[in-house]
Amino acid sequence: MKVLVVQLNPIVGDLDGNTNKILKSIENGRKKKVDIIIFPELTICGYPPDDLVYHRSFIDAMELHLESIAKASKGLVVIVGLARRTLSEGEKHLHNSAAIIYDQHVIGFQDKCLLPTYDVFDERRYFEPGEGVRIWNIRGKKIGVIICEDIWQHAGYVSYTRYKRDPILALKPLKPDLLLNLTASPYQFQKPDIRVSVCAKAAKTLNCPVILCCQVGANGPLIFDGYSIHVNEKGELIHLAKGFHEDEMLVDLTACVCSCPFRYNMMNNLLEALVLGVKDYFFKLGFKKACLGISGGIDSALVSYIATKALGKENVIGIGMPSRFTREISRSDGRELAKNLGIAYKEISIEKPFESFLKLLEPHFFHKEKDVTEENLQSRIRGMILMALSNKHGYIVLSTGNKSELALGYSTLYGDMCGGLGVIADVTKTQVYNLCRYINEKEEKTIILKSIIERPPSAELKLDQIDLDSLPEYGVIDNLLEGYVENYLSIGEVAEKYGIPNELVIDLVQRIHAAEYKRRQGPPILRISKKSFGVGCYYPLVQGWL
Amino acid sequence: MKVLVVQLNPIVGDLDGNTNKILKSIENGRKKKVDIIIFPELTICGYPPDDLVYHRSFIDAMELHLESIAKASKGLVVIVGLARRTLSEGEKHLHNSAAIIYDQHVIGFQDKCLLPTYDVFDERRYFEPGEGVRIWNIRGKKIGVIICEDIWQHAGYVSYTRYKRDPILALKPLKPDLLLNLTASPYQFQKPDIRVSVCAKAAKTLNCPVILCCQVGANGPLIFDGYSIHVNEKGELIHLAKGFHEDEMLVDLTACVCSCPFRYNMMNNLLEALVLGVKDYFFKLGFKKACLGISGGIDSALVSYIATKALGKENVIGIGMPSRFTREISRSDGRELAKNLGIAYKEISIEKPFESFLKLLEPHFFHKEKDVTEENLQSRIRGMILMALSNKHGYIVLSTGNKSELALGYSTLYGDMCGGLGVIADVTKTQVYNLCRYINEKEEKTIILKSIIERPPSAELKLDQIDLDSLPEYGVIDNLLEGYVENYLSIGEVAEKYGIPNELVIDLVQRIHAAEYKRRQGPPILRISKKSFGVGCYYPLVQGWL
Repeated sequence: MKVLVVQLNPIVGDLDGNTNKILKSIENGRKKKVDIIIFPELTICGYPPDDLVYHRSFIDAMELHLESIAKASKGLVVIVGLARRTLSEGEKHLHNSAAIIYDQHVIGFQDKCLLPTYDVFDERRYFEPGEGVRIWNIRGKKIGVIICEDIWQHAGYVSYTRYKRDPILALKPLKPDLLLNLTASPYQFQKPDIRVSVCAKAAKTLNCPVILCCQVGANGPLIFDGYSIHVNEKGELIHLAKGFHEDEMLVDLTACVCSCPFRYNMMNNLLEALVLGVKDYFFKLGFKKACLGISGGIDSALVSYIATKALGKENVIGIGMPSRFTREISRSDGRELAKNLGIAYKEISIEKPFESFLKLLEPHFFHKEKDVTEENLQSRIRGMILMALSNKHGYIVLSTGNKSELALGYSTLYGDMCGGLGVIADVTKTQVYNLCRYINEKEEKTIILKSIIERPPSAELKLDQIDLDSLPEYGVIDNLLEGYVENYLSIGEVAEKYGIPNELVIDLVQRIHAAEYKRRQGPPILRISKKSFGVGCYYPLVQGWL
Repeated sequence: MKVLVVQLNPIVGDLDGNTNKILKSIENGRKKKVDIIIFPELTICGYPPDDLVYHRSFIDAMELHLESIAKASKGLVVIVGLARRTLSEGEKHLHNSAAIIYDQHVIGFQDKCLLPTYDVFDERRYFEPGEGVRIWNIRGKKIGVIICEDIWQHAGYVSYTRYKRDPILALKPLKPDLLLNLTASPYQFQKPDIRVSVCAKAAKTLNCPVILCCQVGANGPLIFDGYSIHVNEKGELIHLAKGFHEDEMLVDLTACVCSCPFRYNMMNNLLEALVLGVKDYFFKLGFKKACLGISGGIDSALVSYIATKALGKENVIGIGMPSRFTREISRSDGRELAKNLGIAYKEISIEKPFESFLKLLEPHFFHKEKDVTEENLQSRIRGMILMALSNKHGYIVLSTGNKSELALGYSTLYGDMCGGLGVIADVTKTQVYNLCRYINEKEEKTIILKSIIERPPSAELKLDQIDLDSLPEYGVIDNLLEGYVENYLSIGEVAEKYGIPNELVIDLVQRIHAAEYKRRQGPPILRISKKSFGVGCYYPLVQGWL
């Protein structure tokens, strides 16, 4: 039995475009004489479709597209994901479902049983859980079909939730010969190989091979890394599809193939995720060119590199925007970086508008001391310059803030927080350093200057300023992110686990909550961690806890 | 039997502060010799607590606070809302629950059975549904206790969801003498009296009085209007607590009281909601003063009025920021409006920084035609001025955009979209006009100048510009909002229902989706409609539908 595992990169809501891709893959499968063609979760509409599924016309259109897919499946078994109306009584009107098509007929649907409603997932908002699992008899084989989360509970990898049932155990007495899973599982740092062990666990329990067909590509903040999986009945990895690219993986279940190891470089993986995030954001919105502020610091250096890899050097424009507080080394490092990357670089001094604002506002400041106001003015003038270039030339502005800054609100709203995409806003400062060092190794030449990596970070918004004036060591912030934000530890637990004084933990946690109003107005964030501020983390805007 | 219905205004997460309020009301109840004191849904933590409930230490603290409340309840029955851990097996670890305290002992919990997970609600993210309802024998009476949504299903007022069970019908065979409901039900234009009919329906089914204890006050975008309810067994309204204010409503179930009509003025109600939204936002964040741009247009006029009512005229600062395109009538109308309101008013011309930016950017615009770039520059300079005053003096900037503009993205990101709160960003332009006319009637003098109301709306960002240059009539946009965004009609249905040409509907719907990226970075929005862009409406940022 041959299975074609189509690892597709859909555009959310683009039913026509996604269906065309599906039809093309069906033709490829026919040419390769496969028996079954399987696609990822919610193939026709892409994952996640959000509130679009509330539109009846959207669901109607999906039904029509399913018909055309069925029509194209002469002689084949095609398994494709879609949202469909529930027929039974249920809280919600829709199922997250897989259509099983056999020789031009939809012979049935398998609905997703376990609906993740935590972190970035809100499937209970839209969907009714499926009633149960069954066996599909296809070409003499007993095949189980399930959707994404249905396989996770069994391996014990679900947090925040403990489902009452386990579709894998429900399938066990039915003795399937093969288990197929339609998946849209977002990338998370250090996550890809976990999926393999999840499949292995199910394979061993069911004593049959497991195939996981994954969505790939970025849809807004969520990046899907691909890496579709085939494990044998012993749970050994036999096939692995590409990471971060569309792929059609041909699995011949009768062939004797040795197991292949899943080796990936964590840093390279993270870099590929961010590059894909930028690439798909531009492509799916129909944009080509990016501009960003290059300060001579490490964050903008990393974002420039990622943008260059994603869009090509001819499509990235770096803008240096020095002020009276910008040191010569920052200016020359910025210029040098742009040269290393081969991207266009311009310098636009912010001094003139800065002076103009200071003079204009002076009578309204009532002789108050200089404070963060004057610093924010500089940052906002830079934001205005970037946005003006964006408006005039059709660039998307990339925001360069990192997660550690964003956590504590060490950033200027409408200033450096301007932009269409927060490329590294879910990347901690510790990871930023690691990535930059990795890039220099990987490229076999120094792209990101040593002096950029080694200088103490500074916003350069006043004389001789460094980040440490206002922030603790970045390592401390990053511990706090892990302990408090990712793992919901208490103040005392964070203090003990990371050896941070109790008072400092309280102060930092208060700053995290107080900065919520800034994050609400920040750019969309590429999500790469267990808990990103952009999506999946909902702290109240107004609150009195801590 | 006497019941004290405590309509509380909690701060989300402020367990200490909320508990102190609860304790004070218990003492009041004792003085009034009541039998039962009832509080709103999730009293101790306030509604909605969002991801705070994921912190174990938050739940632990709530348990401790429950103990202190129990301790204070000597000789009384106190029913208070909180989040508590589930003991049974369930998908989620928590229940949205009511603790029933009798003479210092927690005699049991009633968990919420129906968990809204649609629109602004996401309770399935956090909570496990309660197993069922029961009767509590209190002072010789059989009392049913339920929470918010549990009563709505029965009256048929739940949209987006059809629950499989109906707690009212489950209580019916148990023949309760009284039904108590702990509620946090957000304000919605024209909604308050619907709650009365929901209570009436349950009362008639159960043939017993129903008391609904509502949360009041604004928590971020959500405004809770109060209006706690007592209906008798015939479903007649007997008592109604205050709207938009804390209240302790004493219900003597043995007294013979005539039914009272629920009369409210829709416009006044809307105005009160917005005023409370601003007031609580400032109070709960610990701010006093607001500043806003006064353009001489109708939107900023309305927001100035609301801010003045919410914060006091001494706490509102209006800033006129004229440019070469500002007409004299706009300037004088702005000044006049500020005088009518008695608020401070300053004029700061944007010409100097505007010229400075134009000169600075000219070499980088490559002789391209003037376009929206130059318009956005002006708007962003205004945003910068307001934010500088905010930073220097500790004001919160109020954003003045309305919902109709926001729908189509007719607004400048980081410009007029700047601000800590989008006061009327869920108010359509049609409603803006109605509110302003209503204000002038109500105040018995013209606060909002006739010429402000009658002049065609204009952003005044280029010569002789009016909104109609870029937008259809506001009535058309508002129809689209009702048809497409609120009621999920298809293109064809909208066209037919409102008599708008099909092509125009398509164009406008495309503009709605294309403006999603702006709305994602907009200020928090006070929610007053069935479907607000700020919260409860989640369209994909990147999508290919329409």
